[in-house]
Amino acid sequence: MTENYRTFSNGVPMSTVSVEEGRDGREPGRQTVAILGSGDYSRSLAGRLVRAGFPVAVGSRDPDRNARFFTQQGAAVTNRRAALSGAGLVFVAIHRENYPALQADRDALAGKILIDVSNNTEIHEGESNAEYLARSFPDSTVVKGFNVLSAWSLSSGLFGGSKEVFICSDDNNARKTVMQLAQDLGFVPVDYGSLRAAREIEAIPLRLLPSWHLALKMFLGVFIIFFLYCLYRVVIFRAITGTNQASHIPVSVMNMTFAGTAITLLCLVYIPGIFAAFTQLYNGTKYKRFPNWLDKWMLARKQLGLLSLLASIVHAFLSFMIWSPSYYARLFEQTATPSGDVKYGKLRWSGETFLLFGALSLFLMTVLGVSSIPSVTNAMNWREFNLVQSKLGWAVLIFAIVHNAVYGAEVFTLPGLFSSYTIAVFQLTLVLPAILVLMKVVISLPCVGSRVDRIRRGWERNKPPSRVAAPEDPQEETSLMS
Amino acid sequence: MTENYRTFSNGVPMSTVSVEEGRDGREPGRQTVAILGSGDYSRSLAGRLVRAGFPVAVGSRDPDRNARFFTQQGAAVTNRRAALSGAGLVFVAIHRENYPALQADRDALAGKILIDVSNNTEIHEGESNAEYLARSFPDSTVVKGFNVLSAWSLSSGLFGGSKEVFICSDDNNARKTVMQLAQDLGFVPVDYGSLRAAREIEAIPLRLLPSWHLALKMFLGVFIIFFLYCLYRVVIFRAITGTNQASHIPVSVMNMTFAGTAITLLCLVYIPGIFAAFTQLYNGTKYKRFPNWLDKWMLARKQLGLLSLLASIVHAFLSFMIWSPSYYARLFEQTATPSGDVKYGKLRWSGETFLLFGALSLFLMTVLGVSSIPSVTNAMNWREFNLVQSKLGWAVLIFAIVHNAVYGAEVFTLPGLFSSYTIAVFQLTLVLPAILVLMKVVISLPCVGSRVDRIRRGWERNKPPSRVAAPEDPQEETSLMS
Amino acid sequence: MTENYRTFSNGVPMSTVSVEEGRDGREPGRQTVAILGSGDYSRSLAGRLVRAGFPVAVGSRDPDRNARFFTQQGAAVTNRRAALSGAGLVFVAIHRENYPALQADRDALAGKILIDVSNNTEIHEGESNAEYLARSFPDSTVVKGFNVLSAWSLSSGLFGGSKEVFICSDDNNARKTVMQLAQDLGFVPVDYGSLRAAREIEAIPLRLLPSWHLALKMFLGVFIIFFLYCLYRVVIFRAITGTNQASHIPVSVMNMTFAGTAITLLCLVYIPGIFAAFTQLYNGTKYKRFPNWLDKWMLARKQLGLLSLLASIVHAFLSFMIWSPSYYARLFEQTATPSGDVKYGKLRWSGETFLLFGALSLFLMTVLGVSSIPSVTNAMNWREFNLVQSKLGWAVLIFAIVHNAVYGAEVFTLPGLFSSYTIAVFQLTLVLPAILVLMKVVISLPCVGSRVDRIRRGWERNKPPSRVAAPEDPQEETSLMS
Repeated sequence: MTENYRTFSNGVPMSTVSVEEGRDGREPGRQTVAILGSGDYSRSLAGRLVRAGFPVAVGSRDPDRNARFFTQQGAAVTNRRAALSGAGLVFVAIHRENYPALQADRDALAGKILIDVSNNTEIHEGESNAEYLARSFPDSTVVKGFNVLSAWSLSSGLFGGSKEVFICSDDNNARKTVMQLAQDLGFVPVDYGSLRAAREIEAIPLRLLPSWHLALKMFLGVFIIFFLYCLYRVVIFRAITGTNQASHIPVSVMNMTFAGTAITLLCLVYIPGIFAAFTQLYNGTKYKRFPNWLDKWMLARKQLGLLSLLASIVHAFLSFMIWSPSYYARLFEQTATPSGDVKYGKLRWSGETFLLFGALSLFLMTVLGVSSIPSVTNAMNWREFNLVQSKLGWAVLIFAIVHNAVYGAEVFTLPGLFSSYTIAVFQLTLVLPAILVLMKVVISLPCVGSRVDRIRRGWERNKPPSRVAAPEDPQEETSLMS
Repeated sequence: MTENYRTFSNGVPMSTVSVEEGRDGREPGRQTVAILGSGDYSRSLAGRLVRAGFPVAVGSRDPDRNARFFTQQGAAVTNRRAALSGAGLVFVAIHRENYPALQADRDALAGKILIDVSNNTEIHEGESNAEYLARSFPDSTVVKGFNVLSAWSLSSGLFGGSKEVFICSDDNNARKTVMQLAQDLGFVPVDYGSLRAAREIEAIPLRLLPSWHLALKMFLGVFIIFFLYCLYRVVIFRAITGTNQASHIPVSVMNMTFAGTAITLLCLVYIPGIFAAFTQLYNGTKYKRFPNWLDKWMLARKQLGLLSLLASIVHAFLSFMIWSPSYYARLFEQTATPSGDVKYGKLRWSGETFLLFGALSLFLMTVLGVSSIPSVTNAMNWREFNLVQSKLGWAVLIFAIVHNAVYGAEVFTLPGLFSSYTIAVFQLTLVLPAILVLMKVVISLPCVGSRVDRIRRGWERNKPPSRVAAPEDPQEETSLMS
Repeated sequence: MTENYRTFSNGVPMSTVSVEEGRDGREPGRQTVAILGSGDYSRSLAGRLVRAGFPVAVGSRDPDRNARFFTQQGAAVTNRRAALSGAGLVFVAIHRENYPALQADRDALAGKILIDVSNNTEIHEGESNAEYLARSFPDSTVVKGFNVLSAWSLSSGLFGGSKEVFICSDDNNARKTVMQLAQDLGFVPVDYGSLRAAREIEAIPLRLLPSWHLALKMFLGVFIIFFLYCLYRVVIFRAITGTNQASHIPVSVMNMTFAGTAITLLCLVYIPGIFAAFTQLYNGTKYKRFPNWLDKWMLARKQLGLLSLLASIVHAFLSFMIWSPSYYARLFEQTATPSGDVKYGKLRWSGETFLLFGALSLFLMTVLGVSSIPSVTNAMNWREFNLVQSKLGWAVLIFAIVHNAVYGAEVFTLPGLFSSYTIAVFQLTLVLPAILVLMKVVISLPCVGSRVDRIRRGWERNKPPSRVAAPEDPQEETSLMS
């Protein structure tokens, strides 16, 4: 155990390193671990292994040139054959293209556990690197793992990734050994089963926010529709009638667009739950799978909610920026000055109500957003999570509808509202919420609601009544966030 | 180990599943686990057990009808007796009402560990489900646990609840076995001791934000008092004198109410610490328990702080919305126009100071709020937490008082301030902060402060001096957030 | 195991307590643990040990007086010698000054593991408490640990510190035993190696946000420079020419200062990455260490980013507060009234563009800030983290530059801009971003960029070409956030 065992370059200690008892009771009797390859990853890995008390032998094609990188880590650098001689576990930290070059040491690798830590730069179909390695070296046991770690996270234990390490192998013992090693190094091993899962494991570092894809597409679609419609109403239509409003695109038009997008996305959070209930009613059972699109939509609800929150915040900011009688004349008290001018005073009741509901809606939505932070979510039980995400969410929606409707009611009295032969933006915005609320009312009617409840407790329309009336499942939970 | 072992319905892998070594070194030698009941919970549980490498036998009253739900999970569905035959661990996933029906298989259950996973739909006093099960089957060993998990969290490992599983039993070995099982399934077992604790464990899923109850009550009380007083000052009193201000209830009145509530709640965060110090001074020791109400109040401080932050944010939003000379005339420069009208220019020094302190106060309070997010709190040591929560909190309070006082000083010069025979809202708001600051000054006086410090280090007024002068405890921590 | 084993004072259970199997299969066969000292820390520790199933013997100089504090904990209080008799593990929970008094029980301590939990009230150089204890009792084995826990976190398991416990000892077996004990008590042990590390471990609770020091210094420096310059431009220079603007220091001057600080700090986040690339280009290798100041700067980037976000938020708030034609006349449409006055209408295109980019910049920066919350960061892989922190960060910077430049372009047309013989604040603010963008463009030029990429893949200017062309390291990661 060298002196630099205890402190790291940036003063952050490695977490949860359990030191296994050595045979003589004084020195930790860790078995030597070999690392093939001498790149950044090998260097960081060597440091981490040494700090956890493992003797490390680095096998390099050019030990003299590369030894200098490992001095600080306290690992010995030799040629490959020498490094492999005393080790049972071998990290293969070289590129897939160089696997054939390992055939020279085939006999030295036989009977050992090879840990494939490689990654690809792009997703490719078919055989994974680890399977290829296993096929090339049938006398060795191949385990896939550690590829989700970067050299940076290995050497610092710091941010830029979780502490989970995904491990798979066709050999249960080898997998167990490597999972133990991962734990000894301070990571959380996750068992992925047989080596075929290496295809999935190698795809993980290439993942790019997959849970956000659908939600972002919906956001973009809704945003573009509202933007084009607002552009038509505010700019194009008026340009035809002779007023140039193009200078108001950046804030006025964007503001309407963000407002419409925010409320529409919030509806899109709650619509799939209603659809699910209707689907169950139609099927007469909860045991039939939902259509695929509905499944995907339901899984995108959290992201849709967060995007709605972000759109609401931008809307609120832009609104503050142009909050004046110049933009919202009808919401203010007006008096005629002697000079024939109009003078604006305080807000009328409608202006104040409009603002209050907007503020409350945004404020409660922020609470919803905060409750989505993983460590906050984890502190809640199911009932609490349901209260916040479902009940509070509906309150936000109702407040947002009132906010919009009060504003609309005022605008409604403006002359020339219908002269453009199209409905106003605020009216367009209200269509989806109106349909959603209507559906929610239908699904909550006693006659319909009790049927939905029964289905969710396990009742089926087309099944023979069971001998015992009570359902068997102890957790009659209702569907998520419906 | 079937093919669907590795992937889950939504692509999320189960965490931290340790695969135990099998006897032949190739197959994991897990013992068969039986599940009685075939509802949603059983289905999700079966899937999770199979993925962790356990052979699962589901016992159903109607195996033919229910087998279809378990095909995807890879679990065998038979009648109860057959399911029990090879299993040592038995999950009892049926309702309490159906426990008597299990008497038919009493002999098959004898000698086995029964895991009671049931929940109730409402809190009921007296014997828990698990104790009832243990009384009904004295030849079996009953363990309570896993009831805090929903079918959803079992099948996905996802949000909607923490990963902690609470376990209790009168048999230490059985409890240990089930805790190990929980760990193998990727959960964090928490030992609750003997089976009587099942009463508490069964109450957990019925809990509804208990730590928020007191804080929310205080919030509501303060809010209503301020609302009624503002209503009287702004609307009712003026209505008597002939001016109708009812249209300004939604924003103007609410805004004053939220402002007063925010600063009062912030005081309520720091008052119990002062009370605690005075109580210790009065008792002459820190070893006497605080009165119950003070204990509860001290535990509600974090929630009070967060509610104060939320009230502050709403106050800031409403203020922005009506930020204009129409509402805050005295804070702006005024010039008379030739036509005899008043024209408003930039802010006066008081207006600018008022705003700066409001912004700084809110800004620092947000930092306080962010530091309350569990994963942020966990990254801090005691000294850092104390710096942020105590020092920064007092800074916020002082800034908020200045914000209020500067505004008040300006309003003070308005004619007719005292004509309503009551004090202004800003004056009412300042009463509690003034008392708090006064108490804090008293408690910080050298003569008083040193006495408090000595008490907190273990000194007692009525105890004989110990032989060694220095106190024994190595961590002379001061009381939380005083 | 007493009745109060299961519930805690505030109803929060201890986490992850593994109950070890007892010899008779019914009682947990835990070995007795002794605690020397009877202060708050001892009391909380005793409670935690008892709840985890350990028999606890508290050794006090005055057992009769102190027994009352441990009644609730279920621990026996005796004199020191009696407490030590049956225990193998001894917590030494007394002050360093009192270590000599333990010499009276030297023989009773021999052969036992002493756990030094002491802290200091200030950092002191040289020998740690634990090393002093080890030197004083050479026949005992000293382990340092548990000092990062407060009495509060021991008794509640609640906030005010992480669950990590740092442990070191010169004896591997003893260290291992104490790490296991920490795990049994629900903490996460971290191995710090030999006893010399006690110096570091004892310094941890005295740490005060070390990662923030450099970033806060930079923030203060930048803030003061901008404040003084704004003060000169807005107040001092104009005072000379006869206009008193001192009343606008709190908001107008502070607002400019915060705006300049925000954009400058954001530049300071991205400059070290550019410097690092240039350094690597100059060195012709990535294997040469960066100068120390660059290393430190790179580690301060997260904190600099968060401070920039906070400055931006304050800037946005202050801007809202004075958002009116009085302050930003040139951004509004102006019409002359018949009375010769100027009347302000809606925003001009420049005003709207200026606001939109400000809002988008702040909005995306908030997303960046949220992604820095530990539990959110942990949910992302390297690629996702890089996308958010690097790509999104540059977008924020570009938006902020446009926000500033559009405003500047408008102000530029004001008469008398250069009459103060100094550049305007907005111009000063743009100098650093301009340099940064220029450097980024240079580093991104194909000829330069490909060279940087090659260096980061391991290529070196002055090394002999290796036999195999492909690099050895599998993870060709680019440098963090460059």
